[in-house]
Amino acid sequence: MANILIGIDLGGTNIKIGCFDTHSPRCPSRLRLAEAGEAGLKLLKKTSITTDADTGPQAVVEKMIAAIGGLVKESGFTLSDISAAGIGTPGPADYKAGIIINSTNMPTFKNVPIRQMLSDGLRCPVVFDNDANAACFGEFTAGAGKGVDDMVFFTLGTGIGGGIVSEGKLLRGSGGNAAELGHIIIYPDGRLCNCGQKGCAEAYASASNTAKRATEAVQAGEKSSLKKVLDKYGKITCKDVYEHLKAGDKLAKKITDETAKALAILCINMLHTTEPTRIVFAGGMIAAGNILLNRIKDYFNEQIWNLKKETVEICFATLGEDAGIIGAAALAQDVQKQK
Amino acid sequence: MANILIGIDLGGTNIKIGCFDTHSPRCPSRLRLAEAGEAGLKLLKKTSITTDADTGPQAVVEKMIAAIGGLVKESGFTLSDISAAGIGTPGPADYKAGIIINSTNMPTFKNVPIRQMLSDGLRCPVVFDNDANAACFGEFTAGAGKGVDDMVFFTLGTGIGGGIVSEGKLLRGSGGNAAELGHIIIYPDGRLCNCGQKGCAEAYASASNTAKRATEAVQAGEKSSLKKVLDKYGKITCKDVYEHLKAGDKLAKKITDETAKALAILCINMLHTTEPTRIVFAGGMIAAGNILLNRIKDYFNEQIWNLKKETVEICFATLGEDAGIIGAAALAQDVQKQK
Repeated sequence: MANILIGIDLGGTNIKIGCFDTHSPRCPSRLRLAEAGEAGLKLLKKTSITTDADTGPQAVVEKMIAAIGGLVKESGFTLSDISAAGIGTPGPADYKAGIIINSTNMPTFKNVPIRQMLSDGLRCPVVFDNDANAACFGEFTAGAGKGVDDMVFFTLGTGIGGGIVSEGKLLRGSGGNAAELGHIIIYPDGRLCNCGQKGCAEAYASASNTAKRATEAVQAGEKSSLKKVLDKYGKITCKDVYEHLKAGDKLAKKITDETAKALAILCINMLHTTEPTRIVFAGGMIAAGNILLNRIKDYFNEQIWNLKKETVEICFATLGEDAGIIGAAALAQDVQKQK
Repeated sequence: MANILIGIDLGGTNIKIGCFDTHSPRCPSRLRLAEAGEAGLKLLKKTSITTDADTGPQAVVEKMIAAIGGLVKESGFTLSDISAAGIGTPGPADYKAGIIINSTNMPTFKNVPIRQMLSDGLRCPVVFDNDANAACFGEFTAGAGKGVDDMVFFTLGTGIGGGIVSEGKLLRGSGGNAAELGHIIIYPDGRLCNCGQKGCAEAYASASNTAKRATEAVQAGEKSSLKKVLDKYGKITCKDVYEHLKAGDKLAKKITDETAKALAILCINMLHTTEPTRIVFAGGMIAAGNILLNRIKDYFNEQIWNLKKETVEICFATLGEDAGIIGAAALAQDVQKQK
């Protein structure tokens, strides 16, 4: 039997799936991946299919299994060659029990025992985790986290997802819902977050909320070249903010500074909590490049304590959209190992 | 040979030392302690001596070793019966290397290889950790954390110390300085903290800063029965604030509410970071009792998200001042086990 691992990133719109080969049947994953780099887990084929969540969980899982079957076949294997699979979904969920309780972007998913359903369909052990945890573990094993044992990870998209690796292990918490780092409150009684809290980091510094703050400012009459964008397209995107920043717009600079400052405060808070050696940012917003990264570092240096010199590295992710499927497969490798 | 463990809590003013017996020579500490409760680690004798830090590290360590020798002898054993020792000191320090780099309350301690010095003096392995980590581990193994695997711990004293237990293990971070939870920033650009940061939780909600905020408010002319205390004694203590709160003073209520709210935000932030099942408060300030605890819970319930129902328990520590020496001894048990 071959030793095929499947990594799945289940989102509200798309399901990304990767089919991976491991070079040895029973390698201690972290060590081997660290030694062999990305080659420890070789991506054979990947695909992306639409979720069509409205068809219901049973249909979605069947479609997923069919797609996996196709991928495995294209790679020259069969379903029986799969030794384990990993799947990431947005939190919160009952990750310990393997159940999606409910999902804001997949409303038909209520109390779905996703881990068991996949395990039954694929006839292999399945590991179920938060999608940001999976992406974090992907970057940790094969991307920006290579070579360190302690890492913190943020994805900057519609929301802010998080992941924590401590002493080489993903920190999962009592119910698998640790590292919901976008919901760390940094401005008590501040902006209302979708989660119901006020002042979450996500309410300021996610890509969506960066764009939203820019829109609000322009609508409130602040002078900006972004006004033309709003007038023409009816909305401002995060990408617009960074483009206008690069072109010298003052409001875009102010909005970016607020985002960078919120992210720097998050970095400081995480440094004092799990003391990582590397903090990795991922997600659509990192396309802004060094103009964002350097502002985060500036604010970090400005706001950090002086009790000791801190050397934590703040950097961007390197695996792009594949981080989730790589991480899910790497997590599957661990569950397989435990068997 | 007997199996004696030593737990040390090294502070700027006093050194607390405990001499413990373990019931079996090679017990897996967590399991055994969980099963046997406090009896897994039996406190034979304890003492407290003055630190006299101005005499220098060599003299302090010699005095410490003499005191340990005395304690062990009183317990019916000799130094050679000690199988391991644990020592906690205030952070930050280079806990991995075993070195106190410098210490705000022991100015003569500069680059002191405390772990090696103690290990040479006692001829046994020594574990060196943050004092709040040690107290956290004490509560975890024998106090308010019994029966859970994931716990967060805060000490409310001059500052706010922290400790995190995740999946039964103390979370130490890359250099042993994780869980400096008092320095989580909750009010960016807020009150200046002793650490150099602005808006740390400690700058609002430690016992000292609760008292300081009350003093500032009275000095600024706010009406309060605390004014008489300030006029008479030249200062207001945290204890005064809670006494006047209980007597119905409005300013004392406002100050307490601000403290409770800051602590509730800390609880929420830690829930979203390490997802503990229990959050334990310790330190002098918990003498305030339920009037404080209930306000923390009120603010927690008011400010927490609504994405899922949270069931984390928020409670007070139970071991009092012994937590540090118990935890240091329990940590020593782990180092001994590894040998």
